[in-house]
Amino acid sequence: MTNGKIDEEKLPEDFTWGGRGLVDYLLTQNMNPNSHPLSSDSVFVLACGMLAGTSAPNSSRISVGGKSPLTGGIKEANSGGTAGDAMGRIGIMAVMAQGKSETPQLLIMTSQGAEFRDASFVSGLKNYEACQKLREKYGEKISIVLTGPAGERGMANSTVAVTDMQGRPARHAARGGLGAVMGAKGLKAILIDGSDSKFRIPKNPTAFKNAVKNAVKTINSMQIGKDLRAHGSAIWVNLCDASGQMPTLNHSHGAWVKKNAINGPALAKIVTERGGQMAHSCMPGCIVRCSNTYNGPDKKYVTSALEYETLAMLGANLGIDNLDIIAELDRMCDEIGIDTIETGNTIGALNDVGLFNFGDGFKALEYIREIENATPMGMILGSGTETACKILGIDRVPAIRGLGIPAHMARSRKGWGMTYATSPQGADHTAGAVAEDPLSPYGQAERSRNSQISMAAFDCLGMCWFTFINGTHNLLYPMINALYGLDWDTQRYLQTGKEMLRMEIDFNRKAGLNSEQGRMPQWLKEETLPPPIQNLTFQMKTMIKYGKIFKRMHWQPYTNIHMGSRG
Amino acid sequence: MTNGKIDEEKLPEDFTWGGRGLVDYLLTQNMNPNSHPLSSDSVFVLACGMLAGTSAPNSSRISVGGKSPLTGGIKEANSGGTAGDAMGRIGIMAVMAQGKSETPQLLIMTSQGAEFRDASFVSGLKNYEACQKLREKYGEKISIVLTGPAGERGMANSTVAVTDMQGRPARHAARGGLGAVMGAKGLKAILIDGSDSKFRIPKNPTAFKNAVKNAVKTINSMQIGKDLRAHGSAIWVNLCDASGQMPTLNHSHGAWVKKNAINGPALAKIVTERGGQMAHSCMPGCIVRCSNTYNGPDKKYVTSALEYETLAMLGANLGIDNLDIIAELDRMCDEIGIDTIETGNTIGALNDVGLFNFGDGFKALEYIREIENATPMGMILGSGTETACKILGIDRVPAIRGLGIPAHMARSRKGWGMTYATSPQGADHTAGAVAEDPLSPYGQAERSRNSQISMAAFDCLGMCWFTFINGTHNLLYPMINALYGLDWDTQRYLQTGKEMLRMEIDFNRKAGLNSEQGRMPQWLKEETLPPPIQNLTFQMKTMIKYGKIFKRMHWQPYTNIHMGSRG
Repeated sequence: MTNGKIDEEKLPEDFTWGGRGLVDYLLTQNMNPNSHPLSSDSVFVLACGMLAGTSAPNSSRISVGGKSPLTGGIKEANSGGTAGDAMGRIGIMAVMAQGKSETPQLLIMTSQGAEFRDASFVSGLKNYEACQKLREKYGEKISIVLTGPAGERGMANSTVAVTDMQGRPARHAARGGLGAVMGAKGLKAILIDGSDSKFRIPKNPTAFKNAVKNAVKTINSMQIGKDLRAHGSAIWVNLCDASGQMPTLNHSHGAWVKKNAINGPALAKIVTERGGQMAHSCMPGCIVRCSNTYNGPDKKYVTSALEYETLAMLGANLGIDNLDIIAELDRMCDEIGIDTIETGNTIGALNDVGLFNFGDGFKALEYIREIENATPMGMILGSGTETACKILGIDRVPAIRGLGIPAHMARSRKGWGMTYATSPQGADHTAGAVAEDPLSPYGQAERSRNSQISMAAFDCLGMCWFTFINGTHNLLYPMINALYGLDWDTQRYLQTGKEMLRMEIDFNRKAGLNSEQGRMPQWLKEETLPPPIQNLTFQMKTMIKYGKIFKRMHWQPYTNIHMGSRG
Repeated sequence: MTNGKIDEEKLPEDFTWGGRGLVDYLLTQNMNPNSHPLSSDSVFVLACGMLAGTSAPNSSRISVGGKSPLTGGIKEANSGGTAGDAMGRIGIMAVMAQGKSETPQLLIMTSQGAEFRDASFVSGLKNYEACQKLREKYGEKISIVLTGPAGERGMANSTVAVTDMQGRPARHAARGGLGAVMGAKGLKAILIDGSDSKFRIPKNPTAFKNAVKNAVKTINSMQIGKDLRAHGSAIWVNLCDASGQMPTLNHSHGAWVKKNAINGPALAKIVTERGGQMAHSCMPGCIVRCSNTYNGPDKKYVTSALEYETLAMLGANLGIDNLDIIAELDRMCDEIGIDTIETGNTIGALNDVGLFNFGDGFKALEYIREIENATPMGMILGSGTETACKILGIDRVPAIRGLGIPAHMARSRKGWGMTYATSPQGADHTAGAVAEDPLSPYGQAERSRNSQISMAAFDCLGMCWFTFINGTHNLLYPMINALYGLDWDTQRYLQTGKEMLRMEIDFNRKAGLNSEQGRMPQWLKEETLPPPIQNLTFQMKTMIKYGKIFKRMHWQPYTNIHMGSRG
């Protein structure tokens, strides 16, 4: 970025990692982990998945990577949208930005090559307006990957936005503040035109076609896919509420009496009534279609998509039961380029010092407007949950390892909590989901470790988690093997995940973070969690199963968890 | 603090560590290093030195300790004033505060015992007014150790103030933000009345008397003591300027063309003309008398004392050449309870983003008033250099390991810089001074290590660094041995320093920090430093000696330094 030079490099012939694996490889090879995340020495990576630009279902997710201004360690975040497919089609696996440009730049990539253009005409604009102007100038077919005003200003809570099938910057690689890393390079946006390129040609076309057919058949047959098409990822409002894992009122509860105002049926009803769309696809080749577009009372488009994490963190966690307000909050986050999970945690924590009353949607909107206007208070709130709490003197910090806690609570999902406390990616729910035997104090370290390994490998593919192929790996290997001419099996797959985690841990060690960093904060070890009163059966079963460790009808905090070996 | 209980415990019979050593011992024994610094699980320590409450010269320095909100690791900071002597006399080596009180408390300690009293009548007051009210209520003879408004609000850049011989809160255990740790306990102030207690009785009174006599004789004979009495620690303005180690204009230079406006002679002239005092003692038994009291143009008291670090960081580093403004800035820092080094670094860094012009003293005053009023901008600036830079998107951060860089520059004092990059205490100039062969790229790791060991041990004694007895250890052991009936020699002394550093490193490791944490920031590895043009002889000698590594007449950045072994 410093001198406007673009080099094209071929990856080693036998190198097949994509997505997060490619991020890990490029960062550990090209960056001093001790560099400041926003310095010219820092490196920004955009990488598509191994299966991008093919007919493999749901394979267009795109990864961004860098040193996180929030965690201080390595970070990968991925997103839907059209960019992954476009990159795959033109045969670019990754973009790596080094140095720093004095003026904002666009990087334009087509099948013919890549070049820089001046970005000052969109610099500082909100994401929707910026994308509109870019599409007016460079055509409707381009995919746009861009950092918003928050990222341009270096705010630690900042996303990288990716345009969806309608060209809207509604998909975000949101976690870890990588928008600021992109912004600090002077790289406002990457434009990719894959419209004149066909699917990649597999090494073994027939085998690939069959493998894809099998995967599609399995995905289409899953009940959860039907639920997702009907109600979006908002189906998890009811599920997580029932199991007491939905952060509510600044993580003081795991279930919410008002959950019916924000759950799947409520969302689907409003969306349908107002001419919005359920069963919306966020990327080419998506057969799950969990996305949605949300219209306001005037039936005009407001945002896409209201996801479970957003509904929980900007809804239940803030006590806001009005979907229109949540939709407006989500749109504003997308416009500025800030993460809804981090933002929901930050605003919720303000309740501790009397700066926010639960349910006050207008105050929440006002705070996000302060972030947009970069007032001093907005700069504090835009710096992420941990830093905002530090500045405002809040010691019950709803963040682990530098990241705001996702909408699956550590106390009612002990294994998932173990992931938050140990993942090199920080408290990221996509770094190692663990649902099994959620309240047991035993075996969680092993479950978390296995899930972290498996999900790291899965993050190489560019595939969407909601295909749930991760649970049936056997459908993956035929696609990989036919595309690349390889012979991957479970062992090779898990080996990839392990190698990736080792690279990430090594990066973090060199960045000054050891395995004790972050861990589980004190309040999670002390505060019991009231079980969900809405689901007495589940509660009673739980009581009976773990009766001995439940005292006073409250779920156990994190003190008695057996960490297991550190291996 | 939670239940208002006070326990008295005897230290093990053979335990003689004081000051920083006692801080290390009590923190590692009683605190989970992974706790939030402001949580109830965090521990605050106040400890006097091994020689406190005796006739040993300059032995009344008092240590405060806790987990630093700035570094995230263990921190000890010490201060002059009368409290160390008073604690020593009544036979209390240390106070350790655990838990958290809902309402602000005073802890009152006399030879008869200790008790809590309500502190609400002084809570939120600035330090001078608070001390005046406390002295009105509890008598002129009390020593006061207190946290200011910044500490009460949990600001990471906050000090613990200690009253001087005139009862003024002008002495500060300033580094590392320990005022916030004290404030978070609900402990507004510790009042110590040692006025009815005599000196401690040594195991061997005659030997002790002789040892003290020898030490006093040596200290009194030193030329530097005479200089310090004449010009205060401001003598270092000329010395550090000449050797290019005085941070100037946000660390862009190591010497300042306007240094004559803030140096020792300039200070002494104004102080004397206006009826202030040079050769002022900050604590009982001080025979060096480097302190001063500074009066304004109206000949009324403004502040005490203008020290070198303050003159450099609030003067040269901000381009402010007016002693009256620097004195006012210092007084405001003392009133709110914030560190002048951290504050000077923070305001200086604002120049990078156009928020501060060098030389604009009124803007600097305005920023400190914002900290006082806890506006959002004030909260940002009160959070310390590293965090303020993070929020404001500044990547040339003048902090190492979480602490603002002191007024001895790493590039012109390579060995001292090594201390900043490796000390478990962060970039603290008192953690391991290295002056020898300052520009050599060789041998600095070893020099820093030796100095860190020796200065850690010295920090046990409660003695002032300016006695320079640290350089002639042989004068120390007779005092220690006669007081405690021990047989300390150099080996035992250095062994103490090593044990302390091991405890500190272990604490930090458990807090999540490894040896790579912080290290030397990128800009210090890239920016060369113009040598001081005022001292051509020194410059020429340097050029000749290290001619090969000097390019373009600039001093070398930190890239080519040999780190040596990590042992």
